[in-house]
Amino acid sequence: MSFADSILEGNRLALARLLTKIENDTIEGREALNELFAHTGRAHLIGVTGAPGTGKSSLVNHLALYYRNPSIGKARQVAIVAVDPSSPFTGGAILGDRVRMRDLAGDPGVFIRSMASRGSLGGLAVATSGVVQALDAAGFEIIMVETVGAGQAEVDIARLAHTTLVIEAPGLGDDIQAIKAGILEIADVLVINKADRPGAEITERALRGMLQLAHPAPHIFQNHHKDHSWGEPGSQQFKEDDSAVWIPPIQLTVAIEGQGIPELADAIARHYQHLMTSGELSQRERSRLRSELDNLLRDRLVARWRATVSQDAYNQALHNLVDRKISPRQAVDLLLNGDAS
Amino acid sequence: MSFADSILEGNRLALARLLTKIENDTIEGREALNELFAHTGRAHLIGVTGAPGTGKSSLVNHLALYYRNPSIGKARQVAIVAVDPSSPFTGGAILGDRVRMRDLAGDPGVFIRSMASRGSLGGLAVATSGVVQALDAAGFEIIMVETVGAGQAEVDIARLAHTTLVIEAPGLGDDIQAIKAGILEIADVLVINKADRPGAEITERALRGMLQLAHPAPHIFQNHHKDHSWGEPGSQQFKEDDSAVWIPPIQLTVAIEGQGIPELADAIARHYQHLMTSGELSQRERSRLRSELDNLLRDRLVARWRATVSQDAYNQALHNLVDRKISPRQAVDLLLNGDAS
Repeated sequence: MSFADSILEGNRLALARLLTKIENDTIEGREALNELFAHTGRAHLIGVTGAPGTGKSSLVNHLALYYRNPSIGKARQVAIVAVDPSSPFTGGAILGDRVRMRDLAGDPGVFIRSMASRGSLGGLAVATSGVVQALDAAGFEIIMVETVGAGQAEVDIARLAHTTLVIEAPGLGDDIQAIKAGILEIADVLVINKADRPGAEITERALRGMLQLAHPAPHIFQNHHKDHSWGEPGSQQFKEDDSAVWIPPIQLTVAIEGQGIPELADAIARHYQHLMTSGELSQRERSRLRSELDNLLRDRLVARWRATVSQDAYNQALHNLVDRKISPRQAVDLLLNGDAS
Repeated sequence: MSFADSILEGNRLALARLLTKIENDTIEGREALNELFAHTGRAHLIGVTGAPGTGKSSLVNHLALYYRNPSIGKARQVAIVAVDPSSPFTGGAILGDRVRMRDLAGDPGVFIRSMASRGSLGGLAVATSGVVQALDAAGFEIIMVETVGAGQAEVDIARLAHTTLVIEAPGLGDDIQAIKAGILEIADVLVINKADRPGAEITERALRGMLQLAHPAPHIFQNHHKDHSWGEPGSQQFKEDDSAVWIPPIQLTVAIEGQGIPELADAIARHYQHLMTSGELSQRERSRLRSELDNLLRDRLVARWRATVSQDAYNQALHNLVDRKISPRQAVDLLLNGDAS
């Protein structure tokens, strides 16, 4: 039986071994992914990002607990992928797993995997995408991809997700204002975790203000039941169709106590529903797959070129660069075209 | 007079215009960089990184003020490059500049430039490198490159620097433990800013513990005056040569009050001295230039390939991918080799 077949039959041990092969980018891993790919596209992919100190891991844990034991409906198979782009070397990711074990250990319906960036960020994005595909094919209905930090890495990895949660917390300092401006644009659901701390109202007010800047149209929507004169005649079609525009809701949680988790899960479910009814789901799928295709193409082009150039020629160009006889771009011209034009 | 000549003569307006051209990756910008590159290699490049809320910007401001008006020695020309990889869209970086103006405005010996990530992270690293080269050629003796956040982006940009400061602050939450593990490995000088806050001793103790894990050898050094039996005979050569190993010092600061800034500047100067006497400076220069060369090569290879493939063929491959008829890797095979093997 092939790797892919074992995984489609629900063999968790085979899955864990495959994920390692995918992370290490082995031939066996690539072949299994080729086979499994036709079985993907069924999971709801949830990205979770936010600055250090916002309590992302607790939030993801409690969401997983809720999906396993929801107040309404049936339990779902949940996978958590914790990506740590800031830790190219050692440590953090494994610690994360251990903290999780206490709450979620022993539940066969939950699968947790940590990934640390070993080489380039591009490599991490490709590996994460492969891991998510394998989990999707293996039948996990909810896959949460959690990233540590709040940089471009997170933005790239968030592009993998259908629904992106951006986690904030009160009182993390002034710098954070600068981050929100960018990160807000990728948020489908905003979460203020640790909402029992002082300053939660200030954070909420600030986020609401920024949301209104980022999504000016919704004012009309939110008010159209109160004041019909706000809407222009031309915008009527949007007013009647709730699925046309998604305004990121702000959810307050105290994750370590489980507060606000059912409401958050509900907001996530509503977003998925919106994606399906608006047709945006297939658009996101397309742009997600396109960005994966481009990443793979780039890696392959570099590998192919490296196989054609002699190490001596490369070293000679680098030597002249270090001696400042040629500039970096002139070194590239030399290596690719044979002359430093 | 060429752009490059104006800049070598100290024309600040020409410099500002060139930096924009470098950010936009224009031909004029590239040509000027080719000319200027031979004049680079004189500045001390200082990378400053750390999580949001640690007060990086204040610290950089106060270091700049100190370099302009040191308690001993002569004032130096200082450039600050503030890179915001988390803000691919708008905002944060410009705010940063405005906050700075109050302290540093009007001093012709200080030049401040903000950069936001517009496209790919790779593009940002290349643009930042170009901006730093132009500033170096323009005669700035100290160039501080500050990054917001603490992800792989920062690790990549820190590779540009000779001396990397990693800023921590007390009480930023538990997640931060996970980050430190990775970020510690790039630190040449550790700074605990906001050191007047509760918990500074805990942060210092934690950092010291992690440093001892990361640099086990230094125990011998730190203790060898007290207890000669610690050192093995074979390690004698290291003991006598202080320049052989650099142990990242931990500096306590309260940047907004200027506390600890002269001591920090001193630690930075000692690190630069160490780099020169140990020969590590030229090693870092080499690896820095190598990584820039590789970034440029990758971009060029992709651009060259894109020019050879028809948009139809690309769209057809993407279409089959979205329909899950082929996997991402099979799409790459199809585009590069003409068959999905």
